[in-house]
Amino acid sequence: MSLAPLSDDTTPTVVRAGLDGPLALVAPEMQKVNSLILDRLQSEVSLIPELARHLIAAGGKRIRPVLTLLAAKLCGYQGERHVALAACVEFIHTATLLHDDVVDESDLRRGRSTANAVWGNKAPVLVGDFLFSRAFMMMVDDGSLRVLQILSRASAVIAEGEVEQLVTANDTSSTEAAYLHMIASKTAALFEAAAQVGAVVADRPMADEEALATYGRSVGVAFQLVDDALDYGAGKNLGKTVGDDFREGKITLPILLAIARGSSEERAFWTRCMETMEQEEQDLERAIGILHRHDAIDDTIRRAESYCAEAKGALARFPDSPARQALLDLADFAVHRAF
Amino acid sequence: MSLAPLSDDTTPTVVRAGLDGPLALVAPEMQKVNSLILDRLQSEVSLIPELARHLIAAGGKRIRPVLTLLAAKLCGYQGERHVALAACVEFIHTATLLHDDVVDESDLRRGRSTANAVWGNKAPVLVGDFLFSRAFMMMVDDGSLRVLQILSRASAVIAEGEVEQLVTANDTSSTEAAYLHMIASKTAALFEAAAQVGAVVADRPMADEEALATYGRSVGVAFQLVDDALDYGAGKNLGKTVGDDFREGKITLPILLAIARGSSEERAFWTRCMETMEQEEQDLERAIGILHRHDAIDDTIRRAESYCAEAKGALARFPDSPARQALLDLADFAVHRAF
Repeated sequence: MSLAPLSDDTTPTVVRAGLDGPLALVAPEMQKVNSLILDRLQSEVSLIPELARHLIAAGGKRIRPVLTLLAAKLCGYQGERHVALAACVEFIHTATLLHDDVVDESDLRRGRSTANAVWGNKAPVLVGDFLFSRAFMMMVDDGSLRVLQILSRASAVIAEGEVEQLVTANDTSSTEAAYLHMIASKTAALFEAAAQVGAVVADRPMADEEALATYGRSVGVAFQLVDDALDYGAGKNLGKTVGDDFREGKITLPILLAIARGSSEERAFWTRCMETMEQEEQDLERAIGILHRHDAIDDTIRRAESYCAEAKGALARFPDSPARQALLDLADFAVHRAF
Repeated sequence: MSLAPLSDDTTPTVVRAGLDGPLALVAPEMQKVNSLILDRLQSEVSLIPELARHLIAAGGKRIRPVLTLLAAKLCGYQGERHVALAACVEFIHTATLLHDDVVDESDLRRGRSTANAVWGNKAPVLVGDFLFSRAFMMMVDDGSLRVLQILSRASAVIAEGEVEQLVTANDTSSTEAAYLHMIASKTAALFEAAAQVGAVVADRPMADEEALATYGRSVGVAFQLVDDALDYGAGKNLGKTVGDDFREGKITLPILLAIARGSSEERAFWTRCMETMEQEEQDLERAIGILHRHDAIDDTIRRAESYCAEAKGALARFPDSPARQALLDLADFAVHRAF
């Protein structure tokens, strides 16, 4: 996997408009996905839709279900199965968000208070389990063992990635390779599965499935790397609190790059802040200063651009179409959304 | 569903020996289930098997997988599919235990410290997700959409039951009907699915599936009712801490019966202890006294006996066989295990 330097800016104009193009192309299907999500959230136990709606209605971009819809369109799919499967993908994503909030105690997600801040730790875990089970029920209704295989495997890989993150979270001796493996699991596995499922419903040959899986995985890695950069104030603020990762001692790529390039004095600083977790008031500011001095944030974005290029390359086998263009734009959006 | 009074003791002698009979009949298969569990716990992320083994190796009785094995045997099944599906059932059960520990902060489970006491809240949630996903991967490998349907639905119902429990936990105005509905979801749904799956692998007609589902559900309800009675010191102590439910303000059937039969002074006592959670040192002792005065513990056991009778009745359609006898004994064990 090559890590190309920052390319000249050949970003098409549509990118600057963000997600509008890709979203417009699947707007009617996305409306069906949204209705289905609200419908399948129903339960005799009223706390379940109440709590899940808190997250699902929070106005997330729903990039993952959009991936499924666009991939199916790219593959010329004409039926309706992709709608339910896109909803499954969003349910799985929401379940992992609910469970992840138990983990990182972040106070903001998408600019709103997390479910946990309102309902404690207990209910979000159980509602996440409900959403996860409901997603599997919907896949069973769909009836494809191949889809079930792809999404159950993705779910297991996500859980493994989250545990990896837990284990390496405060470990300043972790490596870039370990980090990339972890985010490929924790974040990119669902992007990968979401895109791949689009090819499966369209009954396309394995090579197309694999191309879309590669596309999804690379977009997912790029997306996460940019997220990590944004946490240190890169680009415009998108309602994300700067410094969440730092305060939790979560070692992300910018930190690993800075540690590798830094002085022993700086290494001691990172160890104190991220391992022994003794943070003082000015430490976040100092951290951001060190990161910039070593180009760690820009280089993280460059890595993301490289994955974005890889994602776009995977679409080369498909003939040009509005769906293909939308997927290219979506890959750009993953990197450029905050700039 | 009739709630018969305590029947004369016609318990066969084998019951007094506990689970030995049922376990012996499926010992070779159970060994395969255990190997498969250890095998499918494997992950690149070493914390996963480490943590899951803590629970799975903790010497639980594995009643749920035994149900699947015995039900398959009862239905004359000759293949090997029931082994993997029994392991799935145990994975789902272990996942719910891990997530349930986040919930009830109990310090003892099966006489050992809970995973949470050792690893905090984060890892058990994620390892539970891994086990849950792994279970679905194994079901996909099995290839039966019917099995996937039964177990995904059971998982959703369990999550709903757990949320119901959360919502009604400290509510002294809750009803016996609401309580029975909740434990039918939270506990009995997996017993039901575990037994039903045995008929599915044997390709038996729907009436057999339904009979085994009824059997499993009734055993599950009986099992939970006895658990609730044991929490107030009924029977012999089995390494279970007396008073866990009380200290958490968890309203179970014994409490609901005592409230319905009690004075207004007693109602004030229950409200103080279970709703406003102002507990003093002698309160547990006083609670147990009130429960006995109103026959609330014995009546809970009587309810359990009635469900046990219903479970055994559901097996009437099957000809006599060692597997049928083992299932009858297992139903008795659910009620008599502590007496």
